[in-house]
Amino acid sequence: MTSRAIDTIGLDADDTLWHNEIYFQSGQEKLAALVAPFANREMLGKKMLEIEHRNLRLYGYGIKGFTLSMIEAAIELSDDAISGSSIRQIIEIGRDMLAFRIDPLPGVTETLQALRGRYRVIVITKGDLLDQEAKIARSGLGDLIDDVHIVSEKTPEVYTRIFGGPDKASRAVMVGNSLKSDVLPAMEAGAYGIHVPYHVTWAHEHAEEPPQTERFHRMKRLDQLPGWLAGE
Amino acid sequence: MTSRAIDTIGLDADDTLWHNEIYFQSGQEKLAALVAPFANREMLGKKMLEIEHRNLRLYGYGIKGFTLSMIEAAIELSDDAISGSSIRQIIEIGRDMLAFRIDPLPGVTETLQALRGRYRVIVITKGDLLDQEAKIARSGLGDLIDDVHIVSEKTPEVYTRIFGGPDKASRAVMVGNSLKSDVLPAMEAGAYGIHVPYHVTWAHEHAEEPPQTERFHRMKRLDQLPGWLAGE
Repeated sequence: MTSRAIDTIGLDADDTLWHNEIYFQSGQEKLAALVAPFANREMLGKKMLEIEHRNLRLYGYGIKGFTLSMIEAAIELSDDAISGSSIRQIIEIGRDMLAFRIDPLPGVTETLQALRGRYRVIVITKGDLLDQEAKIARSGLGDLIDDVHIVSEKTPEVYTRIFGGPDKASRAVMVGNSLKSDVLPAMEAGAYGIHVPYHVTWAHEHAEEPPQTERFHRMKRLDQLPGWLAGE
Repeated sequence: MTSRAIDTIGLDADDTLWHNEIYFQSGQEKLAALVAPFANREMLGKKMLEIEHRNLRLYGYGIKGFTLSMIEAAIELSDDAISGSSIRQIIEIGRDMLAFRIDPLPGVTETLQALRGRYRVIVITKGDLLDQEAKIARSGLGDLIDDVHIVSEKTPEVYTRIFGGPDKASRAVMVGNSLKSDVLPAMEAGAYGIHVPYHVTWAHEHAEEPPQTERFHRMKRLDQLPGWLAGE
């Protein structure tokens, strides 16, 4: 098989290049301990999902909005009885998440090194601007990436614009752990789509399977990407 | 006088295209009422400045970070005694700020209409990604703007990159209410700089006067810009 006519690689960041969702889950675990006098783990999970959903339009994706949602959950579950020092600790949980060291997932650094110079490599990610810039800096991957686009929503139009029009989109591949945000809208924009599942998926991110087509592929780890690009 | 060799216009957004700082000050006024049992206006102002400064590196600019800082200030000033319902109200203050209607400052809409098609008009702004996108949408100015760059810091390097290199930067003008963020670093990148002062300036934003040069100009309102561009 010959190599594919692809010159641009779009990469999701959170849970594709590095762990992300586990930090949110670990933050929520710490919150569970703080609100234990008022609610059990299951009640907290339900409340957080409800509050995050309600806040998504105003807060978007990111740790600051998550922190505000955690504070709201603690207040609501405790009927306003939560203490000032507990709120202080929730703010600390958020701050720890913001300052956390970012380790690339297995195979990521080697893969980006192998692609460097041979493809235009673009990171396309949702989230807070400052969060994401800081994570890229702390991941040590900055020099292996040609361009970074931090966007508030991942629609087909956004992918078309970032890839540089429909023609260029047809020669691009978008790689990510979310079918709904990374793979499906990019494929709708004309790109190839590659799904690299992550073992934890956020409840808002579930989507249908994509249609069976030659332009879709699923791989276990990012380091299978160079082989796929070579048509193996 | 002939018209200047300028083809690109960079515009700051907050307090240049629309009011911004007054919303933060009005948010802080509401906070003052909530913490009145624990601290007066002056103590609150001092505490907020200290907390915002401490948080800037992690939270960046924007309403969500400001909300978290307000919560911290209330907890610290009350020695943890602030009630859950007061914290709830602080979160509401932040949410109201996020949802507020954005009215362009006097002369802004007409000026952008006059520039439309004759110059490349780029908005270059700090702040939360989603906040700023929402504000541009709600301002009704979106169709009058060619490109938007939401950045975490406004350095000379950032301006050079956005304008498209040193050559293009020398044919650009950056317009904004902050000497420190808008005018000086853009001029260092080779652009013209125009200062349109706003009557309230955030304490972190004070800067020295720029050197007296033909490439710097100060105007009272944005609608003087077309005349300046024409060399009047």
